[in-house]
Amino acid sequence: MGTLRSTLNVNRPAMSDTPQRHDYPHLQPILTRWQDSDLNGHIAGATVYSYFDTTIQAFLQLQGDLDPQEGEVVGFVVSSAADFFALPAFPDTLEVGLRVARLAGSSVEYQLGLFRVGETQPCAVGKVVQVFVERASGRPVPLPPGLQAALQSLQG
Amino acid sequence: MGTLRSTLNVNRPAMSDTPQRHDYPHLQPILTRWQDSDLNGHIAGATVYSYFDTTIQAFLQLQGDLDPQEGEVVGFVVSSAADFFALPAFPDTLEVGLRVARLAGSSVEYQLGLFRVGETQPCAVGKVVQVFVERASGRPVPLPPGLQAALQSLQG
Amino acid sequence: MGTLRSTLNVNRPAMSDTPQRHDYPHLQPILTRWQDSDLNGHIAGATVYSYFDTTIQAFLQLQGDLDPQEGEVVGFVVSSAADFFALPAFPDTLEVGLRVARLAGSSVEYQLGLFRVGETQPCAVGKVVQVFVERASGRPVPLPPGLQAALQSLQG
Amino acid sequence: MGTLRSTLNVNRPAMSDTPQRHDYPHLQPILTRWQDSDLNGHIAGATVYSYFDTTIQAFLQLQGDLDPQEGEVVGFVVSSAADFFALPAFPDTLEVGLRVARLAGSSVEYQLGLFRVGETQPCAVGKVVQVFVERASGRPVPLPPGLQAALQSLQG
Repeated sequence: MGTLRSTLNVNRPAMSDTPQRHDYPHLQPILTRWQDSDLNGHIAGATVYSYFDTTIQAFLQLQGDLDPQEGEVVGFVVSSAADFFALPAFPDTLEVGLRVARLAGSSVEYQLGLFRVGETQPCAVGKVVQVFVERASGRPVPLPPGLQAALQSLQG
Repeated sequence: MGTLRSTLNVNRPAMSDTPQRHDYPHLQPILTRWQDSDLNGHIAGATVYSYFDTTIQAFLQLQGDLDPQEGEVVGFVVSSAADFFALPAFPDTLEVGLRVARLAGSSVEYQLGLFRVGETQPCAVGKVVQVFVERASGRPVPLPPGLQAALQSLQG
Repeated sequence: MGTLRSTLNVNRPAMSDTPQRHDYPHLQPILTRWQDSDLNGHIAGATVYSYFDTTIQAFLQLQGDLDPQEGEVVGFVVSSAADFFALPAFPDTLEVGLRVARLAGSSVEYQLGLFRVGETQPCAVGKVVQVFVERASGRPVPLPPGLQAALQSLQG
Repeated sequence: MGTLRSTLNVNRPAMSDTPQRHDYPHLQPILTRWQDSDLNGHIAGATVYSYFDTTIQAFLQLQGDLDPQEGEVVGFVVSSAADFFALPAFPDTLEVGLRVARLAGSSVEYQLGLFRVGETQPCAVGKVVQVFVERASGRPVPLPPGLQAALQSLQG
């Protein structure tokens, strides 16, 4: 993995600019699965996004009181992006760090980092922008107070 | 889906700026699967990235002569991003449009658009940047001529 | 794949006992995806079950008028099984054959076969038993007439 | 989940016949993911098979010294089956119990049980039959001694 990290960092900003583990107020454990590896033996980028979704959804349900099936408010992802520095493999234990970079009206921008347990430098970093809408009308709505408070706790 | 599209387009660039189906020289069919839908009945963003990976990898193998298991050259995704305008559901037949925006040295930037069959406006658009490395050393290498030619054919 | 087929058929019933493509009244196309391949370059067994689910669910929605999100009746899988004879790879176009072996009360037993396009011998065969329950109470219920008729059309 | 368990147990063997947690010598933790839930909010059967694969593959690599990418011996699943009693949801922490029921020549039959943490009755039980072949020739081979010993340790 060392070789890959140095390879992929060609033409990248210095790692010192990259958020590190302690920059994220919330951590979600992820256990890799056999199916996460692609033909080359690495975790595919699409799988990393599924780790990010899992992290956000678990937080929203457990800390933000969001009921994904019956709740009045539903969150939709409107954009996302990620940079991949190093690619973990199976079997491995990972953690996703989560913080909120921006919280305004109906929308929230999350920043995420994927770490191998015990490492401070991320394997990948990304962002996800979510808009909350009323389930019935599909129109953007202000966040319910419990959700708003939970997300504020993730701001630097 | 109409409501969602209009909802999600709040604060977005006009759709006229978005690439349309005829802007993509290559199209990959995608059949949605039961597992693609999340609890809300929509295709998740991570699944859209898996459609993008499928489109790129099928092109590389079938048109670019890339052997993902034994070939001397391996492509790694170093970054990706996507905007989601509307969310298809299961069952549905989709197409991913693929073009090459930049091809330089060991690296290629793809632009992709996800369409429902018969629609000209995309459900999602994205980009993926891939770096090709020598399998043995892990170091970036110039693209093999067959691969280079195939990718050039996807440039506007 | 030939070697694998002959290898895996050691100690198996003769292929003449295995249902062939024309034994299935309904066929669902499946396009393989990059993520379907495991490290060995083969479609994993769990992925074959997801093809089976996709086939059943698409049939229930499109031919059986089942609304998976709002309908009064919900189908749960209570058991499944499969034999794997040969393992397709990516990229490939497959078909799943579907028939109904038993339809009694609230329950239906499907038989399924996975085929590469143009081949008569299956890559895999399996069965899935589903019980239909009332969404509100969770109790087994007789099938709605439209669903009953659609499933009867799949009986030999 | 209680209702579903009682519902699905109609016409089933008594739960006392079902293996319980202490019947499995090896346990693999599984963290559910957002994508594991289907439209009905339950973990799909195909996903349970992917938990089983993950359990077997992690054991083979970590305890059995099997190298899935370069090793001389490769394991192929030739059949599998499962019964589903209750369906966990996201987010949840699960465990898969693993034992070996039969070990003969090139083939091994695993028995598996899926448990929610703290529960003794399984959510699902299943079996998987794997045949080990020489990677180069594709022919069944006797198990390497280290692998044989690791699998024997999982026998009752």
